[in-house]
Amino acid sequence: MIFECNVPVNFDNNERIRLGHGGGGRLTNNLIEKVFKPIFSNEYLDKLHDGAVISLPSSKIAFSTDSYVISPIFFPGGDIGKLSVTGTINDLAMCGARPMFLSLSLIIEEGFEIPSLVKILNSIKEVSQKLGVNIVTGDTKVVNKGKGDKIYINTTGIGVIEHNLDISPQNVRVGDTIVLSGDIGRHGASIMALREGIELETTLESDCQELWTAVSSLIDEGIEIHCLRDLTRGGLVSALNEIAKTSNLGIFVEESEIPVIEEVRAICEILGLDPLYVANEGRFVAFVPDNYAQRTVEIISNVMGTTARVIGKVTEDNRGKVIMKSLIGSTRLLDMVSGEQLPRIC
Amino acid sequence: MIFECNVPVNFDNNERIRLGHGGGGRLTNNLIEKVFKPIFSNEYLDKLHDGAVISLPSSKIAFSTDSYVISPIFFPGGDIGKLSVTGTINDLAMCGARPMFLSLSLIIEEGFEIPSLVKILNSIKEVSQKLGVNIVTGDTKVVNKGKGDKIYINTTGIGVIEHNLDISPQNVRVGDTIVLSGDIGRHGASIMALREGIELETTLESDCQELWTAVSSLIDEGIEIHCLRDLTRGGLVSALNEIAKTSNLGIFVEESEIPVIEEVRAICEILGLDPLYVANEGRFVAFVPDNYAQRTVEIISNVMGTTARVIGKVTEDNRGKVIMKSLIGSTRLLDMVSGEQLPRIC
Repeated sequence: MIFECNVPVNFDNNERIRLGHGGGGRLTNNLIEKVFKPIFSNEYLDKLHDGAVISLPSSKIAFSTDSYVISPIFFPGGDIGKLSVTGTINDLAMCGARPMFLSLSLIIEEGFEIPSLVKILNSIKEVSQKLGVNIVTGDTKVVNKGKGDKIYINTTGIGVIEHNLDISPQNVRVGDTIVLSGDIGRHGASIMALREGIELETTLESDCQELWTAVSSLIDEGIEIHCLRDLTRGGLVSALNEIAKTSNLGIFVEESEIPVIEEVRAICEILGLDPLYVANEGRFVAFVPDNYAQRTVEIISNVMGTTARVIGKVTEDNRGKVIMKSLIGSTRLLDMVSGEQLPRIC
Repeated sequence: MIFECNVPVNFDNNERIRLGHGGGGRLTNNLIEKVFKPIFSNEYLDKLHDGAVISLPSSKIAFSTDSYVISPIFFPGGDIGKLSVTGTINDLAMCGARPMFLSLSLIIEEGFEIPSLVKILNSIKEVSQKLGVNIVTGDTKVVNKGKGDKIYINTTGIGVIEHNLDISPQNVRVGDTIVLSGDIGRHGASIMALREGIELETTLESDCQELWTAVSSLIDEGIEIHCLRDLTRGGLVSALNEIAKTSNLGIFVEESEIPVIEEVRAICEILGLDPLYVANEGRFVAFVPDNYAQRTVEIISNVMGTTARVIGKVTEDNRGKVIMKSLIGSTRLLDMVSGEQLPRIC
């Protein structure tokens, strides 16, 4: 991959992270002054305090954290940097919160190349800048060679809630329509194809993308959203199971309505995976009253350029369970996967 | 160390973390239901949403993050759990913010013993409960054996600012008195002694402890605090250098006023370390106007049971530098350490 650095960084291309870069002394200071500040400079971060002091526009907030340990760290459609920002922004978006502030904490393995670090940080900057999100506080730790794997990233986000909707699993109601934001499985399938060295005729990319733009459009258009959930580890089935269990209602979906593109289907067949369980990083389900369903589909498809679909509904029977009508017309229970299908997918 | 679990956990003592515990499926769910929820249960976490939705009592907040990679994870005076909560709480306290909400994100190495995990989580609970801080959102990732080191923890905190003081490096002024909250070097010295197998006649423990109680007492007593900084990686000298550089003022300290206990001095001598650069996890410096200095010393000593001291002052000359009058009366520049003195100390 070509190294593109859009900020001046005074490190040569062979320079690597040493234990001292995490030691709190001069090397740490160098990293902050030469790498972090030039990339992320903002009024909060530049104060170099122990934490960021912030005045929020609303006292109702969402707060979410995720650590990212994906392997490989660079993949088609993104890298661990892009993933670590979109992932946490998406969790805030699923609470209906406008993402505003992120913390960034790195655990770097000794020997990691500084140009790769800069590339990852620039990916973080690109997504956060697009959404007006500031990286306001951070931390860097370095672990000995063999005690990590290149780089692990934690981002924790604060978003503000500026509407009166109650968007939560507890607010899901019998009769709610379930809208899926697009075709599923691209993230997991592309990562697995890369790991397994599967060559494809077309270039499948991860669906890694921010979801706030779509969610904010739904809010702005007055859609009465009851619940949102992004599909990450464990795929569509895990997300639906979590909602079914937390709301203690039943979920019924139709397989024929769940879009899976041909490349994803092919990779899943080769690897013996079920796309319904494969990870996504840019897809979500929305639970809305039936009269808002069609408009929800239109708004999402329009904003994201995807094929959003109504895939099912919330039922009074089968409480806590997810039932699917399959392509051949039979119904089956979609249970959570019990083992590890795709390790380190995010 | 004796395993004490004060919540019922349905795992046997030999059960270990598998990759599937981080996979988002049934095993992850088990871990949440059987371990996290029984330990941390609160109104926010129990909602099992993608993030926590919070109504803050003040819209002025502090936000701080840290990842903890200390080795060994259990040490005299604490463990990585206690450290990961006190560390982030202390960063908030240094902003003058009352710690309220924490996120908790774990990166666990495959094969880690679940009883050790429970022990660590109970340490987290103990400190957070004492201060009325809630763990409101979390994440667990599992990495393959050999791609981590038992457990790495990220905590990110939100604290509220409920006073009108401007506590920041930018607010340090010429003539400010510098108060040190107690003797230095216990954390680093005890960890290094443990790693190197140094036997001591007395039992030296880490100084790992929360600092909010002391800081809130200073605020409540009306002390006009200009700046606070806890002494962590890089020790007293790094903290003072950071303040000197950020404020662009000089700092003058007297070695004779900086308390170091005998055990710490002995370990540092054996290992060739300078206590001034050794890490602490429960010490801080306060910058206050001279007329508040004596009261600051009294309050801190009283609340913490330590020997707080006036160690120096802020000067107009030597801008950006830290100068020390040594025991023998000469003055020397205390510069930041350039390499790694103590890797993975926090």
